[in-house]
Amino acid sequence: MSRALPPQELAERLQQGDRHALARAITLVESTLEKDQVAADELFAHLKSPASPSFRLGITGAPGVGKSTFIDTFGTHLCDQGHRVAVLAIDPSSPTSGGSLLGDKTRMDQLSLRDSAFIRPSPASTVLGGLAIATSAAARLCEAAGYDFIIIETVGTGQSERHVVDVADAVLLLVEPGGGDGLQASKRGLIEHADFIAVTKADGDLRALAEKTLMEFTHAPSAYTPRLPARSRTFHLLSMHDPASVASVSVEIAAFAELARPHQPAWRSQQAESEFLQVMERTLIERVRSHPLIQAQAQAYASAEHVRRLPFVLAKQTIDQLLVDKAE
Amino acid sequence: MSRALPPQELAERLQQGDRHALARAITLVESTLEKDQVAADELFAHLKSPASPSFRLGITGAPGVGKSTFIDTFGTHLCDQGHRVAVLAIDPSSPTSGGSLLGDKTRMDQLSLRDSAFIRPSPASTVLGGLAIATSAAARLCEAAGYDFIIIETVGTGQSERHVVDVADAVLLLVEPGGGDGLQASKRGLIEHADFIAVTKADGDLRALAEKTLMEFTHAPSAYTPRLPARSRTFHLLSMHDPASVASVSVEIAAFAELARPHQPAWRSQQAESEFLQVMERTLIERVRSHPLIQAQAQAYASAEHVRRLPFVLAKQTIDQLLVDKAE
Repeated sequence: MSRALPPQELAERLQQGDRHALARAITLVESTLEKDQVAADELFAHLKSPASPSFRLGITGAPGVGKSTFIDTFGTHLCDQGHRVAVLAIDPSSPTSGGSLLGDKTRMDQLSLRDSAFIRPSPASTVLGGLAIATSAAARLCEAAGYDFIIIETVGTGQSERHVVDVADAVLLLVEPGGGDGLQASKRGLIEHADFIAVTKADGDLRALAEKTLMEFTHAPSAYTPRLPARSRTFHLLSMHDPASVASVSVEIAAFAELARPHQPAWRSQQAESEFLQVMERTLIERVRSHPLIQAQAQAYASAEHVRRLPFVLAKQTIDQLLVDKAE
Repeated sequence: MSRALPPQELAERLQQGDRHALARAITLVESTLEKDQVAADELFAHLKSPASPSFRLGITGAPGVGKSTFIDTFGTHLCDQGHRVAVLAIDPSSPTSGGSLLGDKTRMDQLSLRDSAFIRPSPASTVLGGLAIATSAAARLCEAAGYDFIIIETVGTGQSERHVVDVADAVLLLVEPGGGDGLQASKRGLIEHADFIAVTKADGDLRALAEKTLMEFTHAPSAYTPRLPARSRTFHLLSMHDPASVASVSVEIAAFAELARPHQPAWRSQQAESEFLQVMERTLIERVRSHPLIQAQAQAYASAEHVRRLPFVLAKQTIDQLLVDKAE
């Protein structure tokens, strides 16, 4: 990899369509090094807001359900319609993603040929919740680079679901035929936030089972809170052998995207506030353990006071000494 | 329940052997209300340090393995030897503990008759990790009340294990015959920290299986770090029909307690430091969300800045404004 570009130049290049610059910018926002965070901040200062925000679709489901296949077909369909599509995908060689090295080469082979598509495999840890904020930052970069449709793939565990719900404008849950049984508690969070539910592999021998699974979902009591006031969630059967099934989901998602448009600024804003507070907490916790006053108090407490004091009041007093109360 | 006693009086009474006062004091330290925390702090200020610290034994294992039965027999044995025994036990009627209401009355029926024993059922949530600090505070109160041997029973899930390892001087893991299979990953943390491992119900039809299970544990590769330099973990078979088996474990535990004595002040100290920092973090997080400066920054970020800034640098700057750097 050549020398690091200055952040401003990286910002300009990615906004001119330079795919390498976009990839390097995403790597930068995934970094936890302080110098990279400073550089990323400067890069962001040079991003122009697009005329209209991109649409962000989260796609979730257990390993093997057919996410890559669907993204390949659906993404290609979007490109055919004139969209520019970015995919923030799970790295299939990561042990936690459930993918195989052999599958690597054939994951999104149609879409990867398109000039108007950008596919970024991220380490599973990025998507799995450690760097949730990096995902939304990456989406912002793709938006600035001109991709109007951004797909965020997650691996189907509780933690990544929670954050994709925050980052995405809508969530599509893919389920295996027979995958409706029990609606396990661990998956319930996933199901509650899905704006679209589709049963994959609904063809041949599995067709009947797929339809049965769809019925289970359609009839299950649901804690789904519609993200858009006038829209309930929709249910779909998907088969890669049936382009009409993909087109049908696509139409539904496009309709959602239209309805979502006026809401997006508020959604982005809420997400930004939430991320800011999360980063605040995380940074405070790091600082706590290294702050001289707190270290001194912790050691004083540990050496003598603990036999005669509980930590609660002392901790609160320490924090009161520690925080300034300026209201600005 | 009669009127609340002033904290100082509660402290005096419990140290004079008043069991009701001890129970009320434990309830106080379990409370999360600020006024109770202040009262608890004052109570603690009036506790005298005992001549020698109590010994704290954590007893862990899956529901049904025989913890209550063992505690009943073992605790009675300790009372016979002249100890004063406190048991911080899981409330059997709590849905998460796996106990039954019918079993309630027969849980520790020998021990509950002893004047020199104090049994405190705590809500499972207390033991399960929400109030880990309350457990160590309760142990401290029992110590001040003159109980020289404190048993802390946990329910056998990952979270409660981690904190009983911190609070207790030693951990005894009870396992079912046949319970060695696979040494499930979820239980591995439990096993790594057990200073004693005993297979229960090692009599009659289950004897052979119990012995086989013991062999599996004895021969399994282990990540156990000895808590005491000169002492490896020990393995035992237990049968409630065989008092000698209980006496044998008891002898081992007593030997451990002797060796542990000079280390206990340092262990308590480390635990106190760790608890202080945990409470600091928890309190800071609560404060973050309600602090006027942080709220103002979060809202400014959400309304305008987020399109052009990442939260990391801004959060760090906010914290710098927020924390005073006085080294005392």
